[in-house]
Amino acid sequence: MAQRHLDPTDPTAGPSPQLAAPPGQGGTPTADALAGYLRAQATEFLRALRLHRETGAGSAGNGTQETVDAARALRRSARRISGSLHTFRPLLDPDWSEGMRPELAWLSGTLALEHAYAARLERLLQALHRLSGATFPAQAVAMPTAGASAGGRTAGAARAAAAAPPTAGPPAAPERGTLTVGAAKAGALLERQLTLARTRAHSTALQALGSSRFHAVADKVAVLASEVPIVPAAAGADLRPHAAAAEERLTDAVTALPLVTAGHPYNAEALIHGLSPEPAPHPQDAPWHQVRLLLRLHRYAREVLHGEAPADIRLLGAGQALNRHRDASEAAAAAAAAARTPRIAPATAYALGVLHADQRHEVEAARFAFQQSWQKHPVGTV
Amino acid sequence: MAQRHLDPTDPTAGPSPQLAAPPGQGGTPTADALAGYLRAQATEFLRALRLHRETGAGSAGNGTQETVDAARALRRSARRISGSLHTFRPLLDPDWSEGMRPELAWLSGTLALEHAYAARLERLLQALHRLSGATFPAQAVAMPTAGASAGGRTAGAARAAAAAPPTAGPPAAPERGTLTVGAAKAGALLERQLTLARTRAHSTALQALGSSRFHAVADKVAVLASEVPIVPAAAGADLRPHAAAAEERLTDAVTALPLVTAGHPYNAEALIHGLSPEPAPHPQDAPWHQVRLLLRLHRYAREVLHGEAPADIRLLGAGQALNRHRDASEAAAAAAAAARTPRIAPATAYALGVLHADQRHEVEAARFAFQQSWQKHPVGTV
Repeated sequence: MAQRHLDPTDPTAGPSPQLAAPPGQGGTPTADALAGYLRAQATEFLRALRLHRETGAGSAGNGTQETVDAARALRRSARRISGSLHTFRPLLDPDWSEGMRPELAWLSGTLALEHAYAARLERLLQALHRLSGATFPAQAVAMPTAGASAGGRTAGAARAAAAAPPTAGPPAAPERGTLTVGAAKAGALLERQLTLARTRAHSTALQALGSSRFHAVADKVAVLASEVPIVPAAAGADLRPHAAAAEERLTDAVTALPLVTAGHPYNAEALIHGLSPEPAPHPQDAPWHQVRLLLRLHRYAREVLHGEAPADIRLLGAGQALNRHRDASEAAAAAAAAARTPRIAPATAYALGVLHADQRHEVEAARFAFQQSWQKHPVGTV
Repeated sequence: MAQRHLDPTDPTAGPSPQLAAPPGQGGTPTADALAGYLRAQATEFLRALRLHRETGAGSAGNGTQETVDAARALRRSARRISGSLHTFRPLLDPDWSEGMRPELAWLSGTLALEHAYAARLERLLQALHRLSGATFPAQAVAMPTAGASAGGRTAGAARAAAAAPPTAGPPAAPERGTLTVGAAKAGALLERQLTLARTRAHSTALQALGSSRFHAVADKVAVLASEVPIVPAAAGADLRPHAAAAEERLTDAVTALPLVTAGHPYNAEALIHGLSPEPAPHPQDAPWHQVRLLLRLHRYAREVLHGEAPADIRLLGAGQALNRHRDASEAAAAAAAAARTPRIAPATAYALGVLHADQRHEVEAARFAFQQSWQKHPVGTV
């Protein structure tokens, strides 16, 4: 991977020099690089928040693509700040750091939820169409995020807007017309349940964005954009041991995964316990979810040290596989949960069973894809 | 592949020299080799029939392992005779050949059915246990074949014995106790339906083995053991063009298969139409079933030319993958059919949906395995 040039005034350093974290003197990345990275992410957070307010203000309930992008950027920088506080915590003021992280996690979690429900519904409806041999109109499902529709308003308007559910939704009756009776009923049931969940997440996000808690986070991030609380003793500290520790936590967790099994196509592992009485999520998925989070922390640590150059293709592939793993795992759980709805028809339950197994199959496919990405090259040094 | 020695009196020719088809003079396999092969298979048929009567006569309703083996040998030689009549039909008396083939197909089809239902039930119950995270006792399912229990009797005893259903069956309640409620009910439903089908197949096979139609086939095979109706014009004819044509039909059919897709693990093709309103079997399976039959004809033609030396490892692997494909396809269809039973509980339907998808996943895995076997080496010459 190409490293950013060390001289921040160098015009070849790229189009967005403020995002590049300049390593310290002599090529050793020090706490200065961390401070630069955190300032850049905080600036990006504030930029996304401003864009969000500007683009979201004119729309009533629905976000434009710009608002959706702004909400995504908001979550993106919140995750990066939070992740860096975790990886490099010995270098930062502990009181400030420990106060900040849960607030950022709350914010990005709250903003992510509405999008997650919408994406889950889209994934399940697409699968139902595929399983029915019908083609699914790719553009039928719009996915406004919570932040998207809520972004323009703050405190005052939030309560009023919360009453209006998101209007852009999953495909309507005409597309469902191509489904068979069981699949159509399963689709309608999932749509009802996940739309309800999404509407609730939307209200929660609106309330969050209008809350004093959110304003307190935004204020703290605004301070971070100019002033990073590095502890005096860490002024010239080398960042690399901390980044290496993050990588080691990742590789340790990957080593504990059943990669030999995952590398054998059609090992049928993911559907084991597919009919067990335990509610979702599958316990076997947890180590993969954990690796997903550790991979993300490792990527952010690399960004702190090397700047936001294009990430290692291998890490990208592995990360995408783990996102797919998470999405399929949660979609399978949603299908299983819908099947426990009282008084559904057997044909509906049958379709949900096929759908559940299909998504567990996707879980298995994602593990295979991760294994393929991961084994392609040895682990790169930080 | 090692060829059998040309001299039938050679003691190194193997433990069962009568099964080796000696090629003609000068290394060119002629109609003589075909006659030798057919005589050997007819002899094997009669030997299996005799063994069948001897071992089955003492048991009431259940076959010993010897009877099961004898029934399998009976079907095995019936398939080989029938296949050779097909591949080399221009060399044989057409009236005799055309009268013989449907009778052999009827016989092996009738004898295969009970075994198929028992194997299907075992496959589905094993899958249900796997999906419930429970271990399945490997020895719990005995599979007597129709022929096994009926073998000892002919005409007279057949009608009386037909009333007694097979007693050795799938695992009973204790093993099902580890299943969850939906899976347990699905298992009980499949057991009821497939045991009924198996009992009917058992009666049909008993009746068949006692029928004058069966005796007529057995008489014809007895004549074939000493006298093969090669047409006079074909006396010195080269067998190789006919065997090559059988191979060409196979390779043409394989070329038409979607092998590129099948070679990509987790292509999710086999479950497309998994929820379509069409009843089983899936139309997409038909070309694979056809290749399975053509592969078998090709293998038999190789046996005629080269003797029954151990078959090409690649053909064996490909054939096993196609058997697994057929079994999983039929098991998936049985699960889907059971889900259409009126008034079943939603939990039962859900479990059958998961089971159906699991077996379609197996179909996809079998296609992948076929592709891997097939691409391993170029097609061998006959």
